[in-house]
Amino acid sequence: MRLSLQPTLDPAAYRFTHVLRTRFAETDAMGIIHHGAYPAYLEEARAAMLREAGFPYEEVRSGPDGIDFAVLELYVRHRRPLQFDDAVDIHVLVDGLTRTTFQVGYLLEVGGQARATAVTVHGAVGPTGRPARMPSFLSDLVGVG
Amino acid sequence: MRLSLQPTLDPAAYRFTHVLRTRFAETDAMGIIHHGAYPAYLEEARAAMLREAGFPYEEVRSGPDGIDFAVLELYVRHRRPLQFDDAVDIHVLVDGLTRTTFQVGYLLEVGGQARATAVTVHGAVGPTGRPARMPSFLSDLVGVG
Amino acid sequence: MRLSLQPTLDPAAYRFTHVLRTRFAETDAMGIIHHGAYPAYLEEARAAMLREAGFPYEEVRSGPDGIDFAVLELYVRHRRPLQFDDAVDIHVLVDGLTRTTFQVGYLLEVGGQARATAVTVHGAVGPTGRPARMPSFLSDLVGVG
Amino acid sequence: MRLSLQPTLDPAAYRFTHVLRTRFAETDAMGIIHHGAYPAYLEEARAAMLREAGFPYEEVRSGPDGIDFAVLELYVRHRRPLQFDDAVDIHVLVDGLTRTTFQVGYLLEVGGQARATAVTVHGAVGPTGRPARMPSFLSDLVGVG
Repeated sequence: MRLSLQPTLDPAAYRFTHVLRTRFAETDAMGIIHHGAYPAYLEEARAAMLREAGFPYEEVRSGPDGIDFAVLELYVRHRRPLQFDDAVDIHVLVDGLTRTTFQVGYLLEVGGQARATAVTVHGAVGPTGRPARMPSFLSDLVGVG
Repeated sequence: MRLSLQPTLDPAAYRFTHVLRTRFAETDAMGIIHHGAYPAYLEEARAAMLREAGFPYEEVRSGPDGIDFAVLELYVRHRRPLQFDDAVDIHVLVDGLTRTTFQVGYLLEVGGQARATAVTVHGAVGPTGRPARMPSFLSDLVGVG
Repeated sequence: MRLSLQPTLDPAAYRFTHVLRTRFAETDAMGIIHHGAYPAYLEEARAAMLREAGFPYEEVRSGPDGIDFAVLELYVRHRRPLQFDDAVDIHVLVDGLTRTTFQVGYLLEVGGQARATAVTVHGAVGPTGRPARMPSFLSDLVGVG
Repeated sequence: MRLSLQPTLDPAAYRFTHVLRTRFAETDAMGIIHHGAYPAYLEEARAAMLREAGFPYEEVRSGPDGIDFAVLELYVRHRRPLQFDDAVDIHVLVDGLTRTTFQVGYLLEVGGQARATAVTVHGAVGPTGRPARMPSFLSDLVGVG
């Protein structure tokens, strides 16, 4: 278990915030957003962070090194459910950068109320699926912006 | 609109039947299976039909011709909702084969009661995304088995 | 088959436009957005249209009449694939209003290029799942805005 | 963080095994099963375990107590990717039962090779979303069968 980042409930500790609106397709018969929707929410927030930082994921993938960021570990803690049509603030930070992995922490809020925290651990992999050297721009993303 | 196949409510008219069980993740806040889950159900039934016919989709894709079957059109008619944990019989037939496209018809039943009918229209595409000649085995799949 | 609306390729013919960005989670091993993602895209655009028109779907659902809009039929025609990270303009119009059903037409574009057209047919259902009278605000949504 | 269960790589340590086949809809543009598909896989395996144990989730939900099992935490560790059309053995065990929560551990294998391990933490909630007393049948599920 590489996962070590402890996501705080203080939004000011995060570097970047992405807003998304939940979909009805993501609700379940309990009337809430199904927990299976969260990995895609986190990924959308990561992609938005990379885009805003000037490193669109699609360019990273199709670039000379053809780097993908494989998800090695995922942890989500649900504090209160999300509902359909919620506008969710997803606060994001990058931390725990090693030569081959990095961690991303998340705080999901609706109207300033914490709904979930999460961590993903990523490894850079090259075109053949082998571990690759971490792109240098990632170190620019570490810490609060 | 290439779609012309009219799926019948008579299960005996179909060549192949695949059974799947709905997932809780596929329900929505109306308490039923969300309509967005159906394309994956139809695809799972198509893949099962190809596998049973001796042409696993994964081998077709990775074979010398590297053929993919792009979905050109999709039509679903919902008659009665599916519920969580339903065991769904998906009856499948192939028809409407042309040099570059074919159609697949579906009848979804639970306990002998029709829940939905559907049609998908497919085109064969090669590795570069260009239309490709239809693999000859498809003609073996046309009609009732 | 109630579906009769023919969605045009002229964006000016639509009443409302919603923009969404495709997710990596929605891609498939063909490297494109999987066709199973489209129903949720259309639904997100419908919900945005209702919200903008002053009738948020969540209020309609939880209001005194507790109306849901069941999807009776769905048709999608794929013209060119969507890719990850595409910003998709989804043009929407409402038409074909009857006492118990209405149709919604869609044109999906990226950078002014048509990628797909679609139609959904909806029926109003009450809390018990029975057909209900169509809310009167729907007639305000018919036609170009 | 309530999560404490450490899922072992020894399949003999699990009580129940559920087999599912991955869907093409669940692949992504990296050519593997997207990590966002795993929560639904785990849930399908949990539901199959409850059904086999004689406590179908749908009956538990609609029974006199109307109990739902909310997902409080989710952890997945990806060891090797899953591919389209893989037949996945999901080994499941229940452990860590307290008065209000329990934990489920998972080992995902293909052909005897470990692909992922996972843990979910659940709480029983009543019809109003409040924590409820854990159904007594859960204690029967703890440990190896």
